[in-house]
Amino acid sequence: MNLEVLIKSSNVLFLLLGAIMIFAMHAGFAFLEVGSVRTKNQINALVKIISDWAVSTVVYFLIGFPMARGISFLKPASKLIGDNMGFDLIRFFFFLTFAACIPAIISGGIAERAKFWPQVFAGAIFAGILYPFFESIIWGINSTFVQGLIKNITGFEFVDYAGSVVVHSFGGWLALPAILILGPRKNRYNSNNPIPISNVPFLALGSWILSVGWFGFNVMSAVELKDISGLVAINSLASMVGGILVSLLLSKRDAIFIHNGALAGLVAVCAGSAIYHPIGAFVVGGIAAAIFVYGFHFETEVLKIDDVLGVVVLHGVVGSWGGIAAGIFGSTLFGGLGNVSFFAQLIGSSLAIIIALFGGSIVYLVIDKLFGFRLEEEKEIEGADLAIHSLEAYPDKF
Amino acid sequence: MNLEVLIKSSNVLFLLLGAIMIFAMHAGFAFLEVGSVRTKNQINALVKIISDWAVSTVVYFLIGFPMARGISFLKPASKLIGDNMGFDLIRFFFFLTFAACIPAIISGGIAERAKFWPQVFAGAIFAGILYPFFESIIWGINSTFVQGLIKNITGFEFVDYAGSVVVHSFGGWLALPAILILGPRKNRYNSNNPIPISNVPFLALGSWILSVGWFGFNVMSAVELKDISGLVAINSLASMVGGILVSLLLSKRDAIFIHNGALAGLVAVCAGSAIYHPIGAFVVGGIAAAIFVYGFHFETEVLKIDDVLGVVVLHGVVGSWGGIAAGIFGSTLFGGLGNVSFFAQLIGSSLAIIIALFGGSIVYLVIDKLFGFRLEEEKEIEGADLAIHSLEAYPDKF
Amino acid sequence: MNLEVLIKSSNVLFLLLGAIMIFAMHAGFAFLEVGSVRTKNQINALVKIISDWAVSTVVYFLIGFPMARGISFLKPASKLIGDNMGFDLIRFFFFLTFAACIPAIISGGIAERAKFWPQVFAGAIFAGILYPFFESIIWGINSTFVQGLIKNITGFEFVDYAGSVVVHSFGGWLALPAILILGPRKNRYNSNNPIPISNVPFLALGSWILSVGWFGFNVMSAVELKDISGLVAINSLASMVGGILVSLLLSKRDAIFIHNGALAGLVAVCAGSAIYHPIGAFVVGGIAAAIFVYGFHFETEVLKIDDVLGVVVLHGVVGSWGGIAAGIFGSTLFGGLGNVSFFAQLIGSSLAIIIALFGGSIVYLVIDKLFGFRLEEEKEIEGADLAIHSLEAYPDKF
Repeated sequence: MNLEVLIKSSNVLFLLLGAIMIFAMHAGFAFLEVGSVRTKNQINALVKIISDWAVSTVVYFLIGFPMARGISFLKPASKLIGDNMGFDLIRFFFFLTFAACIPAIISGGIAERAKFWPQVFAGAIFAGILYPFFESIIWGINSTFVQGLIKNITGFEFVDYAGSVVVHSFGGWLALPAILILGPRKNRYNSNNPIPISNVPFLALGSWILSVGWFGFNVMSAVELKDISGLVAINSLASMVGGILVSLLLSKRDAIFIHNGALAGLVAVCAGSAIYHPIGAFVVGGIAAAIFVYGFHFETEVLKIDDVLGVVVLHGVVGSWGGIAAGIFGSTLFGGLGNVSFFAQLIGSSLAIIIALFGGSIVYLVIDKLFGFRLEEEKEIEGADLAIHSLEAYPDKF
Repeated sequence: MNLEVLIKSSNVLFLLLGAIMIFAMHAGFAFLEVGSVRTKNQINALVKIISDWAVSTVVYFLIGFPMARGISFLKPASKLIGDNMGFDLIRFFFFLTFAACIPAIISGGIAERAKFWPQVFAGAIFAGILYPFFESIIWGINSTFVQGLIKNITGFEFVDYAGSVVVHSFGGWLALPAILILGPRKNRYNSNNPIPISNVPFLALGSWILSVGWFGFNVMSAVELKDISGLVAINSLASMVGGILVSLLLSKRDAIFIHNGALAGLVAVCAGSAIYHPIGAFVVGGIAAAIFVYGFHFETEVLKIDDVLGVVVLHGVVGSWGGIAAGIFGSTLFGGLGNVSFFAQLIGSSLAIIIALFGGSIVYLVIDKLFGFRLEEEKEIEGADLAIHSLEAYPDKF
Repeated sequence: MNLEVLIKSSNVLFLLLGAIMIFAMHAGFAFLEVGSVRTKNQINALVKIISDWAVSTVVYFLIGFPMARGISFLKPASKLIGDNMGFDLIRFFFFLTFAACIPAIISGGIAERAKFWPQVFAGAIFAGILYPFFESIIWGINSTFVQGLIKNITGFEFVDYAGSVVVHSFGGWLALPAILILGPRKNRYNSNNPIPISNVPFLALGSWILSVGWFGFNVMSAVELKDISGLVAINSLASMVGGILVSLLLSKRDAIFIHNGALAGLVAVCAGSAIYHPIGAFVVGGIAAAIFVYGFHFETEVLKIDDVLGVVVLHGVVGSWGGIAAGIFGSTLFGGLGNVSFFAQLIGSSLAIIIALFGGSIVYLVIDKLFGFRLEEEKEIEGADLAIHSLEAYPDKF
């Protein structure tokens, strides 16, 4: 084995480890939702996440990845391996794990009252077409034009190292029209009792799985081993910790907010994780958690938008904050590496919101018109597990 | 550090990551069974898996690995490290994780009514002697003769890259005589109500843990970093996804079948994972899931074989399908890399079935004769947790 | 990319993988405690572990790591990356995961009746000051003096490869004064019924997560990839397996002891994992499990010390045993690599006990004096989840 071979094989291993870690995060999405819904909707959460993953893989393989990155795999296996041990296939796997986050994020917002197949169908459109379109103009084959435009205006390209904006805010804002079209769960705002969640340990398990896998998200966004940066890892850690501590204090030790606060910090840090100072990242994550704690209350209690897991805030608003924060705390003024512009970040972050809200509205309105998006009332009362999946989560009562 | 040292240390890390990932899969086996049995037998599932792991380690260290690979570790520690940083020790760990799958697979089939120690004893014989024997003739020090014979007949060696046949079908078919000798659980076929499973989220957690770890199974079967292949990873993904989608459709969104369908795809893909085109792998996994959905019903309802987790189908039949599928979808006709023969695959796959059925029958008949294999009726009714382990899974009722 | 860059980036990846694996272990600490307490205290376990992690990160970043290793990060991000891709930052992350084990270990001993913030405060002092002090004199910038002294006396330095003594025994012995000052849980010794644990599967899940991550603990203690040793991995495995088998036999198949027995083996093996023969490691782990099975009974039933998870035995006594065992089974007499002295091990292990008992007593006595350490009686009866966190673990009863 010579150096050339070692470099190539190390790159395959490096990016594959990232892909596997983010794949594992989908179990985290599943358990976060399992814990956050009522017992009668736990199976629905599990089946949505794994099905969306599978559908995302197919559409991103056939349409999304070729669209975003200009590489198609419709040729014999011998050509797929090429001279780099199939590195392009691993790039597909890695970026698929990003694309598949979109339906997984939305899933938590529309929980407990959406029909199954329309939800899957929307996810397929997002992972196969709409997300890859946005991916292509920010990171992919069409990024020259959009990034060039932003650079012409602000002097710098829009920085989103690991997807605060491209993945999280895009997914979170896509969920808003879906949630509005569905409307709140039955009795969500009719009584004084909030709808109870079912299982805090499962929610915490989901958060832990997501947090651990997230290091694959951020660190392996280097794509090649030579570009690995210890700073990315420590900034991810610092922002997560900022998120935990601020939510601990603001929520008065509420386990739900704390375990989501860690995620808020991680959502926010992605964009600028390669350029913050760790203390800057800590502040970014702390603010993210504050946005989540107050924003979730504002969204669900003041605006009365029934976003079950708070994904519009956790991924949408906090993701946008992450994009903008890179333009503030990434600057040398705050000890960051600089080469980033607040206005470039504002433009890029706004672009995601606009496209997501617009695209999401069209897709969900059409789906609602064609198939009906909301589960029938008696099925919602019965619970999605029995109504859709003919199965209870715990058949052997104890 | 020079290139030589870097290569050696990278190889140790590479294979060790695979070993750790497959070791983690054993937690997946445990939770898949915990979720699939009644609440009164959950602890038994946990203890069986961890105990079988420990016993397998001992017997494979002392007997199995030396037998299959010709390397013994009964020499001072200084000699174990050798000049490659203990790479042989890591090879032992890696292939141990394969051997230890055998009792873990069987465990799910014989759940809820087997005695504890006879089950452990059978596992020890399989992981220590019978599996290493089969390993040695297909992959190990005695493979020259058997693979040579197959090559003489068919023109090609029998291909099993990561163990569809050597590990999964072997374990699955070994379980059949055990299940038949035990007979069905009390009241399994006396009433109209099937015996309920206890916990779908735990079952799903088990499936997720297995799916994530499986990438270690397939990718690290390269053994050395220089032989890593992105194609192996993507084929594993594609087959898993095929399994998810087909079981989703055929089972009408049943969470149990879907989470097992992912595993069916992964069992089937191992053998040909290095030679399929991803679309071929997708089809192989889809067929695997169809085999599981219909085969499980056929086995347990038509043949009335009480295979609790369906392991004879999931690992046995689907593993054999994986072996044969490599001879079909691995060919260049289906975009694969070729150099594989349908008949060689048929011979190798059949060999595993014959040896497993024959060996398993002898071992379990002797055990049944000597100690009695089936739990006493009153203990089965009480549940294995209290009867064998003097403990309930949830002592603090809530 | 040249060899230099590949080596540097591989080192960052190697140590980061270790850090991530040990970070994941903290989910294991959480679920081990969730399963081992009553249902009314599960959330408290979850919040303690994640909060202690966050607080440990802050104090170890600002005080602990600079104190133990002489490196501060209070400079611009550009300087943090340096010429080795931020390797020092990853060293911080890696050793943070060790420091953060201290409050996580103590947490299990003081479960179900400690006030929240005093517990957090004590953890901050340990992770930020007391542990880094001990780290500095054994492994860090002040080790020359202490290790030199031990070498002068015994001819060899004190060996603790991965922290049996520095991490586990130190944390375990710190817990003893805390447990004594708190006193037993209400009704722990007033009735004939022991206080029931809530959830064996969660306990087992915690044990599995810890066991898998532990390979990061031991293997990545090499710090640089070139120093990786297959022997460390296999010794960890062997000691864990010894722990499983001995606890299986001694406890009569009790799932709680078996899943803790695996951990006992892993605690004990850390110190000598680089020098044992695997069979020696197996014996060390087996003895560790025997110590735990009998020691836990002796501590909690004879001495009537209400150590909920048995951490004084599991981490304290067994950790000390691990330190001493390295001086026995690490010798060439038992097939080990040698270069280790029984007396050096005895001195180092004793030093940890003395400093931990002394430091822990002072810290907890002061905290008890200043704030009161024990939860008010009515809150303990109500349960920490509702009393401290205003939340039940399973709000949607089923």
